[in-house]
Amino acid sequence: VDALVERVHFRIPPFGPADVGHKALAVALSDLAAMGAAPGEAYVQLGVPRDRGEDELLELADGLARVAAAHGVAVAGGDVTRAPALLVAVTVVGEAEDPEALVLRRGARPGDVVAVTGELGGAAAGLLLFERADLESRVDAGVAAALRGRQLAPEPRLRAGIALARAGASSMIDVSDGLGADALHIADASGVGIDVDLERVPLQAGVPEVAAAAGRDALDLATSGGEDYELLVTLAPGAVQAAAEAVGESGSNLTVIGVVTEVPGVRLAGPGGPREPGGYDQLR
Amino acid sequence: VDALVERVHFRIPPFGPADVGHKALAVALSDLAAMGAAPGEAYVQLGVPRDRGEDELLELADGLARVAAAHGVAVAGGDVTRAPALLVAVTVVGEAEDPEALVLRRGARPGDVVAVTGELGGAAAGLLLFERADLESRVDAGVAAALRGRQLAPEPRLRAGIALARAGASSMIDVSDGLGADALHIADASGVGIDVDLERVPLQAGVPEVAAAAGRDALDLATSGGEDYELLVTLAPGAVQAAAEAVGESGSNLTVIGVVTEVPGVRLAGPGGPREPGGYDQLR
Repeated sequence: VDALVERVHFRIPPFGPADVGHKALAVALSDLAAMGAAPGEAYVQLGVPRDRGEDELLELADGLARVAAAHGVAVAGGDVTRAPALLVAVTVVGEAEDPEALVLRRGARPGDVVAVTGELGGAAAGLLLFERADLESRVDAGVAAALRGRQLAPEPRLRAGIALARAGASSMIDVSDGLGADALHIADASGVGIDVDLERVPLQAGVPEVAAAAGRDALDLATSGGEDYELLVTLAPGAVQAAAEAVGESGSNLTVIGVVTEVPGVRLAGPGGPREPGGYDQLR
Repeated sequence: VDALVERVHFRIPPFGPADVGHKALAVALSDLAAMGAAPGEAYVQLGVPRDRGEDELLELADGLARVAAAHGVAVAGGDVTRAPALLVAVTVVGEAEDPEALVLRRGARPGDVVAVTGELGGAAAGLLLFERADLESRVDAGVAAALRGRQLAPEPRLRAGIALARAGASSMIDVSDGLGADALHIADASGVGIDVDLERVPLQAGVPEVAAAAGRDALDLATSGGEDYELLVTLAPGAVQAAAEAVGESGSNLTVIGVVTEVPGVRLAGPGGPREPGGYDQLR
């Protein structure tokens, strides 16, 4: 279950109604991806302020329907109500062959390798591009469009999640709050610690340039920005090679960025010294 | 899927947090009752303004959990997010032995009998009691409490719904918008008309007294007030007797209030002339 609330999670513009529908379903599906579950059906609750027109809602539904079609999800039910802000809450039900096939946050063991799919920092850099028009000229148009797209319309890593579950992932989470906060979710749930080598964290193209132009640390965008919806996973060292190949076949890629330790907490070590893992707001 | 939004569907007070949790799950389950489905699991999306405390949210969860326990519902997932108003959206999944066992809105046929479970008008009268303290003295304390309870904490008619489905209900809906508007939902979906004899509509105890004291028409409370969450059903004439017995065994009762005709629309005939069926707001 996941919700997008206007002025909490998005604003229109830069979001268009179709982006809101897309992202609402995508972030709900991302939670299934992080368990290695296959998507089943979705149920949608729409909250609509009085000033919104039917056209806008139909666009929102179209954006949501495109994501549903792309991942074979049936939108099986829904409800529309008045609300003081535009709101889309999506419940998705996932499936697995048996309960043991699902990956939770609590299975990380000291000695496991920590890895991440795809590239990070793009959603935060995309947000900076929306907030500051002067940053636009610092990166190629195609790169900027990809960064904005990562913020507006993230893709749930469902195939990679299933591949990682089959490859023996010991714990998994999607990177929604930021690498540091999400690593802390795994560390807390598993009763372990996580050490990340920030120099190994893969950054999306254009993130260093946008960060530099905005006077921000590119690695901070990756560790605190969140919303990239990549998968953060722990694996026994012997399982990493096969996992990387399986994720590659799913159309993504896997990068080793750290290790699981016995010392509680998350440590982010990188150039210029350690970073704070970033507090997370339980009510975000 | 159903949502309760603060200042749209409820206010605190008179609602307490536990009432909000109770009603949110109850109205979602009421939709399953209206299909003759057995309740499965529930998923809860909570939207929380910044000024709300943990105690209030725990009370809300307790109210919801009590309804879940009463009906054997497992709350299988959920999410909490910031929102500009307190909001509870509940997705419930129902079960039936086979798809044909489910009752839809579209099966009413001319010649069918129209009936309703329980008694109507109570939720609207309860709301009047909250709005006008001077009405309190017009009814016994127990009667007033029952009217307020109908507004705050309605009960989903799950057992009656399953009984009516098994008895061959041709169409069914829960009375959430008001008898007139909900009859119109069935009439429109089935391509038929519905004639209701208002003198036969069962009113909850105290509704006539509260309505009279407030200068309102008691039958208007039943036909336009909504939120009673009783079941409005159509049945072939030959099925009514067995249906009434089965509903009686479920702890409720069934009252015949009208007939299905070939003339589109809803007609509410009663003392003082016909009433308007009441427009309904699609975005309510």
